[in-house]
Amino acid sequence: MLKIFFTLSLLFTFFLHATEMLPTWNEGKSKTSIMNYVNAVTDKNSTDFIPMKDRIAVFDNDGTLWSEQPVYFQFFFAIDRVKALSSMHPEWKNTQPFKAVLEGDMKTVMASGEEGVSKLIMATHTGMSDEEFDAVVIDWIKTAKHPTKHVLYSELVFQPMLELLNYLRENDFKTFIVSGGGIDFMRPWASEVYGIPQNQIIGSQIEVKYENKQIVRVPKLKFVDDKEGKPVGIHYHIGQRPVAAFGNSDGDFDMMQYTEANPKYKTLQLYVHHTDDKREWAYDRESHMGKLDKGLDYAKEHNWTIVDMKKEWKVVYPFEMKK
Amino acid sequence: MLKIFFTLSLLFTFFLHATEMLPTWNEGKSKTSIMNYVNAVTDKNSTDFIPMKDRIAVFDNDGTLWSEQPVYFQFFFAIDRVKALSSMHPEWKNTQPFKAVLEGDMKTVMASGEEGVSKLIMATHTGMSDEEFDAVVIDWIKTAKHPTKHVLYSELVFQPMLELLNYLRENDFKTFIVSGGGIDFMRPWASEVYGIPQNQIIGSQIEVKYENKQIVRVPKLKFVDDKEGKPVGIHYHIGQRPVAAFGNSDGDFDMMQYTEANPKYKTLQLYVHHTDDKREWAYDRESHMGKLDKGLDYAKEHNWTIVDMKKEWKVVYPFEMKK
Repeated sequence: MLKIFFTLSLLFTFFLHATEMLPTWNEGKSKTSIMNYVNAVTDKNSTDFIPMKDRIAVFDNDGTLWSEQPVYFQFFFAIDRVKALSSMHPEWKNTQPFKAVLEGDMKTVMASGEEGVSKLIMATHTGMSDEEFDAVVIDWIKTAKHPTKHVLYSELVFQPMLELLNYLRENDFKTFIVSGGGIDFMRPWASEVYGIPQNQIIGSQIEVKYENKQIVRVPKLKFVDDKEGKPVGIHYHIGQRPVAAFGNSDGDFDMMQYTEANPKYKTLQLYVHHTDDKREWAYDRESHMGKLDKGLDYAKEHNWTIVDMKKEWKVVYPFEMKK
Repeated sequence: MLKIFFTLSLLFTFFLHATEMLPTWNEGKSKTSIMNYVNAVTDKNSTDFIPMKDRIAVFDNDGTLWSEQPVYFQFFFAIDRVKALSSMHPEWKNTQPFKAVLEGDMKTVMASGEEGVSKLIMATHTGMSDEEFDAVVIDWIKTAKHPTKHVLYSELVFQPMLELLNYLRENDFKTFIVSGGGIDFMRPWASEVYGIPQNQIIGSQIEVKYENKQIVRVPKLKFVDDKEGKPVGIHYHIGQRPVAAFGNSDGDFDMMQYTEANPKYKTLQLYVHHTDDKREWAYDRESHMGKLDKGLDYAKEHNWTIVDMKKEWKVVYPFEMKK
């Protein structure tokens, strides 16, 4: 009899452990606010109950679901593509900002500003079919490594956020990415990594045209899914105001405020605050990437959830779990 | 013993009947081709097997999922809105094509051409927030009746197509609408009627802007989701080439050919051919709505499925089932 009791007890402990929610989140303000929110809006007897069809959760990508330092990873992709394509473009040796890229002179590249970066993006992201571009992105994400972390870029996703995505989906939320990054850069790999279908990934768009039964990528910017563009992108792709929004920068602020202003439902807004200069990077108000300034003030005043990565996350990246 | 056998046999018959696929489709070429296709691509042991994530099916709306005669139903919506808003616009009494609408002079309205229709659309579809527009559309779809059929427009959906949508979803296809109609006109009601989430409804778009925590509708056409626009809309919203496409007109031809050219998978293309002048309308090559000419020739040559509504559908509309 005692033996059976112990076995049952062991099983119970195992079960508890196996189903623990958000396991790499330390007990604390953020985990509590997330779970309180989800419990409230999924409880049929609560006045805060939200029907499943309206449980729309939107996530920024860069800096929210994966790292974004020292520059957006899509920029590294562009750099790597310039190098890979340079033999077909001998003129790049004497044309900025391509020359600087090939010479590894990142200061000059950055100094070329928006116009220079745009040239790099167009030269590396267009002029082929969408299916050809997919193949190039998949090859890169499977092989290219981060310059200082020395792991695949897709290994630099945040373990606690993967758990949060899962937790929300288990509670019948539909999860979307709403990123300033390129929609066609994310879709080929992000779907698998985050468990989000391709049609639930929203991002900036370049022009395409239909030609010879193919979608062909045209060197013209069509839509910037950042700042006030995020609510617009949500409108076109989702068609409903979200109830939960997750970001890390002022670029996400409009999307989060748009969510907060949902006239029908209780909402959740969460900022990932980059406070960990050891395991990840520490930056906010003064950063050249993912600047969080106006949003941080507003979040504090309006009781949004602010995640202190250093204090609240047991691990940052999935590979830390194996140690 | 015999009694048990009969009971089991009855149960079996009941089970068969209850789960009969596509019940309002007569046995015949179209039903066979649909079921053969679905059986082939969902059979793990078949060389035609398609993984669930790639089972993308796209449906035109007007003329494919519901009727479109004598004109697109969204046009009736615009007409009804002009009448409803006329007291706030005394100038419409002397301005075409509004004057003609208010006088019920449809000949003059139609003669005003694309420019006139565009004026009617912009005056009735913009200048408010998206949420205000949703409410107007929902009110209309719940009350307005078709001029000759005298039922709600949403009752003029095709019962056999509702069954087809369900049948595909039961086989783990993801179903999308890809319509020339307005995305924001369809989303408020089509989601419920067709069992398709709002974010899987794609259509033509007008410009919007983010202002005062709201999406505001701007009187400017942004995207026409018709003809070569359909593959483009599919690219932006779905991000994957479909494997099955359903349409009824030359406007769907590019989307269907884009699907047919899927380099990885066996595909299905199906045209709904309007052959029933009693229960619905009969039209194709010469029609001013949903013209099917080039597509019909190509479909015949390339072994696409062509549904003869009159012969192959036991009923057209759901309300016929109650009789």
